[in-house]
Amino acid sequence: MKRKLRMGMVGGGPGAFIGEVHRKAARLDGKIEVAAGAFDIDPVKSRQMGEELKLAPSRVYGNYQEMLAAEAVLPANERIDFVSVTTPNNWHFPIAKAALETGFHVMCEKPMTMTVAEAMELKKVVEKSGKVFGLMHTYPGYPMVKLAKDLVKQGKLGKIRRVVISYVQGWLAKAIEKDGQMQASWRTDPKQSGAGGCVGDIGTHAANLAEYITGSRITDICADLNSFVEGRLLDDDGNCLLRMENGIRGVMYCSQIAVSEENNLSIWVYGTEGGIEWHQVNPNQLVVKSIGKATEIWERGSDYVNNCSKAAARSSRIPAGHPEGYLEAFANHYSNFADTVLAKEAGEAPDALMLDFPGVDDGIEGMVFIGKVVESAKSGQKWIKL
Amino acid sequence: MKRKLRMGMVGGGPGAFIGEVHRKAARLDGKIEVAAGAFDIDPVKSRQMGEELKLAPSRVYGNYQEMLAAEAVLPANERIDFVSVTTPNNWHFPIAKAALETGFHVMCEKPMTMTVAEAMELKKVVEKSGKVFGLMHTYPGYPMVKLAKDLVKQGKLGKIRRVVISYVQGWLAKAIEKDGQMQASWRTDPKQSGAGGCVGDIGTHAANLAEYITGSRITDICADLNSFVEGRLLDDDGNCLLRMENGIRGVMYCSQIAVSEENNLSIWVYGTEGGIEWHQVNPNQLVVKSIGKATEIWERGSDYVNNCSKAAARSSRIPAGHPEGYLEAFANHYSNFADTVLAKEAGEAPDALMLDFPGVDDGIEGMVFIGKVVESAKSGQKWIKL
Amino acid sequence: MKRKLRMGMVGGGPGAFIGEVHRKAARLDGKIEVAAGAFDIDPVKSRQMGEELKLAPSRVYGNYQEMLAAEAVLPANERIDFVSVTTPNNWHFPIAKAALETGFHVMCEKPMTMTVAEAMELKKVVEKSGKVFGLMHTYPGYPMVKLAKDLVKQGKLGKIRRVVISYVQGWLAKAIEKDGQMQASWRTDPKQSGAGGCVGDIGTHAANLAEYITGSRITDICADLNSFVEGRLLDDDGNCLLRMENGIRGVMYCSQIAVSEENNLSIWVYGTEGGIEWHQVNPNQLVVKSIGKATEIWERGSDYVNNCSKAAARSSRIPAGHPEGYLEAFANHYSNFADTVLAKEAGEAPDALMLDFPGVDDGIEGMVFIGKVVESAKSGQKWIKL
Amino acid sequence: MKRKLRMGMVGGGPGAFIGEVHRKAARLDGKIEVAAGAFDIDPVKSRQMGEELKLAPSRVYGNYQEMLAAEAVLPANERIDFVSVTTPNNWHFPIAKAALETGFHVMCEKPMTMTVAEAMELKKVVEKSGKVFGLMHTYPGYPMVKLAKDLVKQGKLGKIRRVVISYVQGWLAKAIEKDGQMQASWRTDPKQSGAGGCVGDIGTHAANLAEYITGSRITDICADLNSFVEGRLLDDDGNCLLRMENGIRGVMYCSQIAVSEENNLSIWVYGTEGGIEWHQVNPNQLVVKSIGKATEIWERGSDYVNNCSKAAARSSRIPAGHPEGYLEAFANHYSNFADTVLAKEAGEAPDALMLDFPGVDDGIEGMVFIGKVVESAKSGQKWIKL
Repeated sequence: MKRKLRMGMVGGGPGAFIGEVHRKAARLDGKIEVAAGAFDIDPVKSRQMGEELKLAPSRVYGNYQEMLAAEAVLPANERIDFVSVTTPNNWHFPIAKAALETGFHVMCEKPMTMTVAEAMELKKVVEKSGKVFGLMHTYPGYPMVKLAKDLVKQGKLGKIRRVVISYVQGWLAKAIEKDGQMQASWRTDPKQSGAGGCVGDIGTHAANLAEYITGSRITDICADLNSFVEGRLLDDDGNCLLRMENGIRGVMYCSQIAVSEENNLSIWVYGTEGGIEWHQVNPNQLVVKSIGKATEIWERGSDYVNNCSKAAARSSRIPAGHPEGYLEAFANHYSNFADTVLAKEAGEAPDALMLDFPGVDDGIEGMVFIGKVVESAKSGQKWIKL
Repeated sequence: MKRKLRMGMVGGGPGAFIGEVHRKAARLDGKIEVAAGAFDIDPVKSRQMGEELKLAPSRVYGNYQEMLAAEAVLPANERIDFVSVTTPNNWHFPIAKAALETGFHVMCEKPMTMTVAEAMELKKVVEKSGKVFGLMHTYPGYPMVKLAKDLVKQGKLGKIRRVVISYVQGWLAKAIEKDGQMQASWRTDPKQSGAGGCVGDIGTHAANLAEYITGSRITDICADLNSFVEGRLLDDDGNCLLRMENGIRGVMYCSQIAVSEENNLSIWVYGTEGGIEWHQVNPNQLVVKSIGKATEIWERGSDYVNNCSKAAARSSRIPAGHPEGYLEAFANHYSNFADTVLAKEAGEAPDALMLDFPGVDDGIEGMVFIGKVVESAKSGQKWIKL
Repeated sequence: MKRKLRMGMVGGGPGAFIGEVHRKAARLDGKIEVAAGAFDIDPVKSRQMGEELKLAPSRVYGNYQEMLAAEAVLPANERIDFVSVTTPNNWHFPIAKAALETGFHVMCEKPMTMTVAEAMELKKVVEKSGKVFGLMHTYPGYPMVKLAKDLVKQGKLGKIRRVVISYVQGWLAKAIEKDGQMQASWRTDPKQSGAGGCVGDIGTHAANLAEYITGSRITDICADLNSFVEGRLLDDDGNCLLRMENGIRGVMYCSQIAVSEENNLSIWVYGTEGGIEWHQVNPNQLVVKSIGKATEIWERGSDYVNNCSKAAARSSRIPAGHPEGYLEAFANHYSNFADTVLAKEAGEAPDALMLDFPGVDDGIEGMVFIGKVVESAKSGQKWIKL
Repeated sequence: MKRKLRMGMVGGGPGAFIGEVHRKAARLDGKIEVAAGAFDIDPVKSRQMGEELKLAPSRVYGNYQEMLAAEAVLPANERIDFVSVTTPNNWHFPIAKAALETGFHVMCEKPMTMTVAEAMELKKVVEKSGKVFGLMHTYPGYPMVKLAKDLVKQGKLGKIRRVVISYVQGWLAKAIEKDGQMQASWRTDPKQSGAGGCVGDIGTHAANLAEYITGSRITDICADLNSFVEGRLLDDDGNCLLRMENGIRGVMYCSQIAVSEENNLSIWVYGTEGGIEWHQVNPNQLVVKSIGKATEIWERGSDYVNNCSKAAARSSRIPAGHPEGYLEAFANHYSNFADTVLAKEAGEAPDALMLDFPGVDDGIEGMVFIGKVVESAKSGQKWIKL
């Protein structure tokens, strides 16, 4: 009988969107329980969240250093197994580093760090620690995205030629950061968000998704970044020509001023023999195209999907026709992360299906991508190698 | 600080679809934990599920009688608070009744009972017990369904005139019950399913959804039931004319032989001033129509939705544009059920938002509906009053 | 070199929607020209339309009798070949009858007549005349509807079991006939429309479409008709259980009070092996379902469509991906009608593809359908044989 | 009573797709008739088409020079009014020029010429001739595109910020030009197509659509062009960053190797207050977005559309809910062109609604666009001013 992993959270205080998603996702499959946390820099709020989560007060901490120190000396069957990092971007790196060095596994929100140098350093820390490191690039967690990757790998689309990825939101169309909107404030502040605004917040998701599905990496980019809202210090919109390994060409664009769009993420991939199309708004369907044939709508949970992709089958929870969503995608990463931790604990090598969650290399690529996009845009939109 | 409710399951053994959904849904919000169970009539399988759930062996029982007896004498801070009934249909009534009479709250899968008489009796048991009884008609758990109900209530559609509800599946298009498919076997067996096949399994969901949204009850039906697959004893397809309170007219149809449909549930409601349309396949959108205006697509999680419907706002977990699904709908019923139990425990009256989950009256209406549809179909499709 | 047919119109004066559609459709393929007309009972308006159409004044008549009499004595290479009847319903029969008896072919708007008796009589007139008679049931004119019919015929769906047809509009949700809206006035007046309101106007289209695609006739119906708008003498909404030849069961419903719907016509057909789904709003796509396979979207104009259905191929004008619409569907009937007339003129037997347009038998079935639906509804919704 | 214009065609022989579309579109509204033609460089084929069109043999010519010479000396009430040019690209310029200089109005397929210099020259010819010149950029002919333009102009979207235009096809995914496919052969041949392949054939449509709707011109581009199919001399795929007047930023991409796409043209426009989205595959709907409100689906032919845009109202033929398509969009250009010619003939100034069809300036912009995109791509994707 496998045991439940104990999770310690940093971030995720009252009102934090992504922290609550991490908790629900971690809890979903009964493999993980929230056991401790430093939920907010305000200790009152941190305690408030601890109470809401029915944690023992002794396991609710004022900051992450306290948590790591205190948990490290608890008995093995009580102390947390891993740390979940869901703070603003500038805290990801120091917390993840400290947690790994204290001996805990880490699941970290993206972007992984503020700079490429930190990302490189974190990789060394991960390797030295021997611990499991997960990065929450959500979208590869969707079953139909896993199916898409497998269809590409199996050659159903032929040789891949063309990719388009679009991730558009509209919530920053006005200068809401000036009205004290918390999410907007830190996301438009270079000190907390890093060099990229929109491109860092959602452009990296788009780039990561393209690389995940095609199995090819972005090699060159030529970008145009915009700050449409007056006085905004970071980009809130951007368009980017892409060149990828294996001769793939394409476009990635993202925006946070696309009025009334919510989280409109879509990808189109075309090969010599077929294509796929996936839209987060309808995540249970994958559009599959083949030369000379009718367009097909593949449905999550169907036998023909499950027979075609073990990863899709394994990451589905409910039957075809009943929609799954964002939480399940998130939970798939936590579930694979937990399986990997438990396998390692048991001295077994985790299999490829368990290891199917984003990690430190995705984090480095994300940081490089942000840096190069910003550099290309500043340089007057030259092509730049990644 | 509110405590977690402890749930004892009957049913939900290895491989049971709906039992696992109940567990995930109950767990989602951190208000409920699985504390005990009689998961399968085969004690080996029941233990296996107990281990998978990391339950203490002493809390895994061979049958529901054992569970009720043993749990009843545990200390108050250990014993289960409520029983979740997820067995085949014919066991719903005796288990629910016994659990209520032993002093436990009950969350029960639908259909509530096998006959109208049992349903009536259960109502008396619920009333006598003073316990909370929930019935898992999933679809009113969706936020956009709650919005639809509120729009109707607020008069945005004017006086309701017309309703169409369609629930079609294709999984019983062949005689798979003869190949030992477990789900198919009991659903096509009158002894385990009751008088209705398709109409009992999914037609009741459709009828319940129509009544929930319109706030009007079905008063007369005229039905045609079919058993397309040779040798099948129960209907696998049916069409039904509807008359409802307040002069509403409409159609309900359901099928389990609609090849390649999965859980295609849709509802259209039209009033004198506007209409709505909802499709389970895209549950985060509600189509809203108004006379002389463009059709609108309302998006779950948006401010304009949340401002319009407290019930929709309260039952959403993640921001607009990230899809929620079936599990969250399920979880909304568990969440409201738990809030109601805790309110009662605290001696407070649960408010209307907490009480927004299906109960024993919905169960009676469902049983009457099944019985009358079958009667109408057998009689040569006469109109019958409910 | 084939000659252009000369068309004489009755109806289609200034402001008449359907008359103008007939003209555009007739003109589209260059096989037909408008040569004469009695466009309006008001001779001023009739002349006005004649001028707009650039007709010689001598060919614009005050009424249909004049037109038939005058045209009949023109030289063969001048006089009209056929009469297009696009008046209110009550005039269809006398005009069609007179035109046939005078020796002209006829293309007639639906419904063909006001009563079943007239319909039967017209059939005799058609047979006696030896002339070609077309009835404008538009929807079988769409290429993807023709494909659907061919897929059924070829057995791709297996044995057909289930049909649902929905045709909903909202334009009669208010009593606009009291405000002098011309279209509404005659359609809600039993003297001009016949026994059926909504069921006659659009329900017959729905029924005709179901019979066309399945190749099976409706044999029994059980109907509920409603007049939601106070004071309206004819039904404005109706629901109908269907039994068809070959064991097919289903539902047809139609409404003109479905607020904000325009011409929302959809059909779903399910067989033992597959299904199809077609929506007039997206007429260039046919949804094709097969047991155990992904849903397919077949695209008008594609090679795989054209290879599968000669009728679909022949009735497409532009390449896949460029949308065709309602006018082309209309024009397909005119085109086949013209080919049939010309083949007969040449002493050749028109082939099956040419003959693929609705005729007098469809008209009789439509009239019987309307009559029986009204009878069933009045009788208290009993099943009635057609 | 207005007279019908007489059209003389160059191109549009047997099997030519676009020529036949021109004929049907010209014919649709009864304002134009095909009166003469030089349909094919093969005189046998030209005659064959003349017969099919029921033209007098004397009006069917062996080449355009013959046609212009012969028609010029016919009596005014017989000779053609304008020439429709539907040949391969390399013939557009000389034919249009000759026709204008002979005294005929011209409707020309796009691209207008092979080079920018020719385009400039043609503008002078048009101006000198005083004749009406139309260029067949189809997509501004759609009513909902006209509505989009009007919504932008009326400020409903606020200040425009962002545009994305996508036009993807898949028909050139294989080297079909080597198998003698006629359409593919000339489109992939620089001598017949010009400097741009895909970007010339469909990229110009996309660029033109963006400029039409926003009312702003493209000022800078940075492009990446690809020839994915081995041995192909022209681009078959391209991606392009855009800068437009008034601070608009965006992306245009086009492809002819996007397997199984047909004519998938879409545009998204975002302003400070709202956005629109239009897809040629569903041309009768315009998606309209407003900050803080539900997404709206505006329907062609509705009162609220017609009240909002005279251009949309005027270019709709049939009621809402019955789909219009590509032919009608084409026909709208012919109809406005004809109205303009007739107004000029009558000595009246054509109004803005009549003049709403693409002309010689659109042609110049298209040629500049192609040239600059090719130049940018060849230069290593630098930004280039238009």
